[in-house]
Amino acid sequence: MSTGVWLMGARGSVAVTAVTGALAVRAGLAGTTGCVTELPPLRDAGLPALSELVFGGHDIAPTPLVKKAEALADAGVVPASLVRALHDELADADREIRPLPSARTQAETADLIAADIEAFRERHHLTRLVVVNVATTETAPPPHPAHADPGMLEAALGGDEAVLPPSSLAAYAAFLAGCAFVDFTPSTGARLPALDRLAARHGVPYAGHDGKTGETLIKSVLAPMFAVRNLRVRTWSGTNLLGGGDGASLAEPGPNAAKTASKQRVLAETLGYVPQGDTRIDYLEDAGDFKTAWDLVTFEGFLGRQMRMDFTWHGCDSALAAPLVLDLARLATAAQDAGRTGALHELAFFFKDPLGRVPHGLADQWTMLCDFVAGLGERG
Amino acid sequence: MSTGVWLMGARGSVAVTAVTGALAVRAGLAGTTGCVTELPPLRDAGLPALSELVFGGHDIAPTPLVKKAEALADAGVVPASLVRALHDELADADREIRPLPSARTQAETADLIAADIEAFRERHHLTRLVVVNVATTETAPPPHPAHADPGMLEAALGGDEAVLPPSSLAAYAAFLAGCAFVDFTPSTGARLPALDRLAARHGVPYAGHDGKTGETLIKSVLAPMFAVRNLRVRTWSGTNLLGGGDGASLAEPGPNAAKTASKQRVLAETLGYVPQGDTRIDYLEDAGDFKTAWDLVTFEGFLGRQMRMDFTWHGCDSALAAPLVLDLARLATAAQDAGRTGALHELAFFFKDPLGRVPHGLADQWTMLCDFVAGLGERG
Amino acid sequence: MSTGVWLMGARGSVAVTAVTGALAVRAGLAGTTGCVTELPPLRDAGLPALSELVFGGHDIAPTPLVKKAEALADAGVVPASLVRALHDELADADREIRPLPSARTQAETADLIAADIEAFRERHHLTRLVVVNVATTETAPPPHPAHADPGMLEAALGGDEAVLPPSSLAAYAAFLAGCAFVDFTPSTGARLPALDRLAARHGVPYAGHDGKTGETLIKSVLAPMFAVRNLRVRTWSGTNLLGGGDGASLAEPGPNAAKTASKQRVLAETLGYVPQGDTRIDYLEDAGDFKTAWDLVTFEGFLGRQMRMDFTWHGCDSALAAPLVLDLARLATAAQDAGRTGALHELAFFFKDPLGRVPHGLADQWTMLCDFVAGLGERG
Amino acid sequence: MSTGVWLMGARGSVAVTAVTGALAVRAGLAGTTGCVTELPPLRDAGLPALSELVFGGHDIAPTPLVKKAEALADAGVVPASLVRALHDELADADREIRPLPSARTQAETADLIAADIEAFRERHHLTRLVVVNVATTETAPPPHPAHADPGMLEAALGGDEAVLPPSSLAAYAAFLAGCAFVDFTPSTGARLPALDRLAARHGVPYAGHDGKTGETLIKSVLAPMFAVRNLRVRTWSGTNLLGGGDGASLAEPGPNAAKTASKQRVLAETLGYVPQGDTRIDYLEDAGDFKTAWDLVTFEGFLGRQMRMDFTWHGCDSALAAPLVLDLARLATAAQDAGRTGALHELAFFFKDPLGRVPHGLADQWTMLCDFVAGLGERG
Repeated sequence: MSTGVWLMGARGSVAVTAVTGALAVRAGLAGTTGCVTELPPLRDAGLPALSELVFGGHDIAPTPLVKKAEALADAGVVPASLVRALHDELADADREIRPLPSARTQAETADLIAADIEAFRERHHLTRLVVVNVATTETAPPPHPAHADPGMLEAALGGDEAVLPPSSLAAYAAFLAGCAFVDFTPSTGARLPALDRLAARHGVPYAGHDGKTGETLIKSVLAPMFAVRNLRVRTWSGTNLLGGGDGASLAEPGPNAAKTASKQRVLAETLGYVPQGDTRIDYLEDAGDFKTAWDLVTFEGFLGRQMRMDFTWHGCDSALAAPLVLDLARLATAAQDAGRTGALHELAFFFKDPLGRVPHGLADQWTMLCDFVAGLGERG
Repeated sequence: MSTGVWLMGARGSVAVTAVTGALAVRAGLAGTTGCVTELPPLRDAGLPALSELVFGGHDIAPTPLVKKAEALADAGVVPASLVRALHDELADADREIRPLPSARTQAETADLIAADIEAFRERHHLTRLVVVNVATTETAPPPHPAHADPGMLEAALGGDEAVLPPSSLAAYAAFLAGCAFVDFTPSTGARLPALDRLAARHGVPYAGHDGKTGETLIKSVLAPMFAVRNLRVRTWSGTNLLGGGDGASLAEPGPNAAKTASKQRVLAETLGYVPQGDTRIDYLEDAGDFKTAWDLVTFEGFLGRQMRMDFTWHGCDSALAAPLVLDLARLATAAQDAGRTGALHELAFFFKDPLGRVPHGLADQWTMLCDFVAGLGERG
Repeated sequence: MSTGVWLMGARGSVAVTAVTGALAVRAGLAGTTGCVTELPPLRDAGLPALSELVFGGHDIAPTPLVKKAEALADAGVVPASLVRALHDELADADREIRPLPSARTQAETADLIAADIEAFRERHHLTRLVVVNVATTETAPPPHPAHADPGMLEAALGGDEAVLPPSSLAAYAAFLAGCAFVDFTPSTGARLPALDRLAARHGVPYAGHDGKTGETLIKSVLAPMFAVRNLRVRTWSGTNLLGGGDGASLAEPGPNAAKTASKQRVLAETLGYVPQGDTRIDYLEDAGDFKTAWDLVTFEGFLGRQMRMDFTWHGCDSALAAPLVLDLARLATAAQDAGRTGALHELAFFFKDPLGRVPHGLADQWTMLCDFVAGLGERG
Repeated sequence: MSTGVWLMGARGSVAVTAVTGALAVRAGLAGTTGCVTELPPLRDAGLPALSELVFGGHDIAPTPLVKKAEALADAGVVPASLVRALHDELADADREIRPLPSARTQAETADLIAADIEAFRERHHLTRLVVVNVATTETAPPPHPAHADPGMLEAALGGDEAVLPPSSLAAYAAFLAGCAFVDFTPSTGARLPALDRLAARHGVPYAGHDGKTGETLIKSVLAPMFAVRNLRVRTWSGTNLLGGGDGASLAEPGPNAAKTASKQRVLAETLGYVPQGDTRIDYLEDAGDFKTAWDLVTFEGFLGRQMRMDFTWHGCDSALAAPLVLDLARLATAAQDAGRTGALHELAFFFKDPLGRVPHGLADQWTMLCDFVAGLGERG
């Protein structure tokens, strides 16, 4: 029994790290550090095995997977010895990556995307399939009436105008093809009322938004700490220095705004108020795939006493994101197997900007995740 | 209906900050920031009100409470304006602080302590009373057979030898006097089998050890974060620079060892293994009542990728500790009212080195605390 | 023999801290920590004494000096006890502060400014006088042909158009009145060719720009360290969080651009190349008069090895700036006494963005300052 | 014309990085980043060229140079591609490394050491030769009367007692062989009156102690900054976490004491007083060849205002040290050529604990170094 993972942005750093890692685990060359679904109790819940995941995807870039993996090794993201050992497997995987189709209308483009996915499903006799968006962050699209209603959306897609951003068109195509969908980026993805209703209509689940891999992860445990200690956070200021393709994209005003909004939400949700201060994302080309975040928190304690803490986080973005992509692929396909449709709120643990009215503290999200997986087992 | 709080070390920084703060809240001059029991759902659970707390205590120091409060204002711990406004109330409170008794045998000393407490109870018609140890940290005592058995302990206390350290003698006297006992320090306190059985025999509860106010508090949310993300913590090194009386005491090898052991326990308990690295406490006289901690954490992610974070915490020890002392007084007396005896494991939320086999992650401790308080209401 | 100090922005935090401090030193209530001119060899060089400085100034704000000093005490900038002890002296000083004049043409405004300064000089029988700009940072003005030539400038000032920004008009008025001029801010001040020639024509010296009080101060010693160790700085990224009036002003794009350009110059000048990375200034109202800077530096060592350092600086802006204002007043008036005219390049030690082609490393600037002061003594 | 560099500890990380680097530079495979003597004006002063350095040395360890270089590549200290490219050159260099001799008396051991050095000199027709100690840090030896006088020392070395620690015996042997000597470690080395006089008698120069590569380097620019700004440093606390062989050695109380004393000296020397606070060195095996230092500085400014800064330094010890070893070899042999004998105070720039009464601020040390090198040129 095989599970397909179709990656939008399949030649990007996160995707290639995820594929390399899954191949390495299957070959017994690496452990599963960083994979949440390998922790008890999740690892005993009957999720699709890491070793049965089959990868394919779309990308606009032509760089062969092996070349990209070698570049990641040079950059210190993955071990060079792994890339050498997995050369043939990576070359095989490369054959399942297609150029992103582009037709006259978005409806036609969606059909081409769905057809590529269907062909992949048949080639590999996949019993279940998830589409994961790990492509570059987009600017939020302007509002459009067709975003609100499936019928209007389908009509609009047939016109000349690009009514959906690429991430949403991918979600649309995934739903057409009967696939689960995961948005690992802050892009719009399935987060439109019309798409939510289409997911229900097609009986598929979706999850998102924006993988929580660094600064926001820490916020999601520190902010609840201040809350349960009744310490008043007065200011929370963050600076993120990152390079790589994501850094360059996020230095653009549009994607930057999408991301920083996503990153501040955790404070309001866990503290119940919004402290002063902003989160900055600055592009630092030389940082490559690494990210340094610095956050300063000032807070007030008993009798008005002012205090402070700060932290730095120096992480490798793709190494943090890739195992979560594998986790989400396993969880989303298991959810589909269990008959779940629509937004998977219970996967909030993985996201900076989760769907629905859910807890934003990491501990509560972990409890919710464990309950969710246990529930799948009962129904599956 | 009044609740008594008898402070061992009543002229120390933590005690005087707690008393000043409780008087300020009662007078409407300050809010309750930092008081956990003022948060929902705890604040609605029928705990003794902050305004009904009455304070007394023992101390070996003779400094008047007003003088000490003024010194705390000069040091920036409490606002000078509050100390001026509460001058008379502090002078009143001063009259309930007694020199620590000292007799030929520890049994006689315990009786004198208990007698002071009893007189306080009668003078104020207190319906319940808790003894809270906020005295200077002691060196751990050498093992003694009498620590294991109440009968042997009582016999030994009648001899010439000092068989119990001061904190444990305070716990013993509290139990004699039918009072709940809270140990806010890393000293031994009630943490001896003989005392545990005496608490049960006298039908009183006790709580401890070592208020969690800074570095360990943060560890108790960060370590679980690494755990649920399946990130392998390789090293965790901490440096604590603190001044004040506590800093000077902790610079002595004996108390220092007691404290650093207490501070490392959270890692083993939440991670399930012990990473490399030590926690240091260094005395820095000039830091006064403030503490700066710096922790460096290195960890391993997917495919062996090494990453790191560090944090600094710059806090005012007494301002962090004092509201927790008030919380614990309210909780321990409510527990006694509800018939609870022996170790109050459920108060682990407040302590670096909690009693019993309990969760060490802060989120789980918070859930346990809320459940505990809800349970008290049902039984009270 | 008295020396006058005329402050543009005399009711601002820096000015009031400087005046309070000078009064405190004169009264024997405070030491001279932070005053560079009190260090050997400068203190023995016959500069005007701190105790003989007489203060006056202009401001658009009406807040009495005593009120502002009390606010600075509440904010922790100056000790409350000092403000109480110096109440009468501050009230006296308040009488020498005038509302900033405003006439139909800038020429007339300049005449009114100069007249206020002249009246101050006569009232106090001042033998020398310096105008120091500590007003809020301005946006850099648009270029104007009159900036290049004294004659064109004088003609243009008689017109309806505001051809000079306020800081430059202050410099112009200072020169008219035969006063030395110091620009402690990043505003334009005397930094226009027309004004430079006017200073020479009037035989007065001037100094600037932008007092070096925190992040840039540290850069001016760390960057030379990397240079003399032949370590290649790859990135230098800075974040500055500051509140107060200056913070609010610097959050505006215009002044912000002026300031951040000023803050980056030291790297190019000391390293000989421009590393990647930006310096940010973010307004954080709650920070009040305090500033926290965080800088991350990544560098390359032997055989391409990448390494890194970061630092945080938590300083009180006015407490850092005020003693430098006193230093500069003493130095600029001594320079005028010694017959120096035009730009005082040798005062680069004090400035982020010094005049002329001068060393930007602090150690070289210190040597240059000491030589300068020694030279004054020889000529004076 | 060839210059010999004889390394005591030739199979250690610093030595192997230095040798690998020199070979790489000679082969045109690497640049000279980190080499101070490649900066103007030093690079134009006629020092022995990097490419003419020939390496040999003693070590008690048997690990082949190629193996050690590969281990350093795995640890990220040197690029793996360099080690592969230089395989043959490293194997050649390996043949010049001898096991450390050990005879019945220290006099005989010294003769054997000197004989090995002499043979190396003859084999390679070396016109000048320097012995550089990069062996593991020793405990300071107990005082001995023979340390004070060359005659007594020579007599004592003939006895059974080990009167000199290994580093000092190496210096003694170097002097016997007419070689310059550099002590890059905090060990005693040539720092004994008897050895100082022997160096003079043999007409050779020596330099030391303890290469300045990280925390102390930064202190040597920050402390002077506080001094020339008349800011009063109240506390300076440092924590150093390091692994590798040096970390393990420095975790021993003896070497640790030698090192931390060396690290604090810069503060007293540049500030003129000793602030509160200690420097810690903690061993963290997992850190490998990397070191993280964290320093907290609190200081007082104008009117008593307290402020603070902290920094972290994350460096690769061997990558920082190795180019300085090459610099010192070039400088010490050039000094010997120029007829300099005895302690080379002017090389203080390179050392934590320099010889003689010299400036401890880095900028002054740099000036002194440049003057020194210019002087050599004049005399040579």
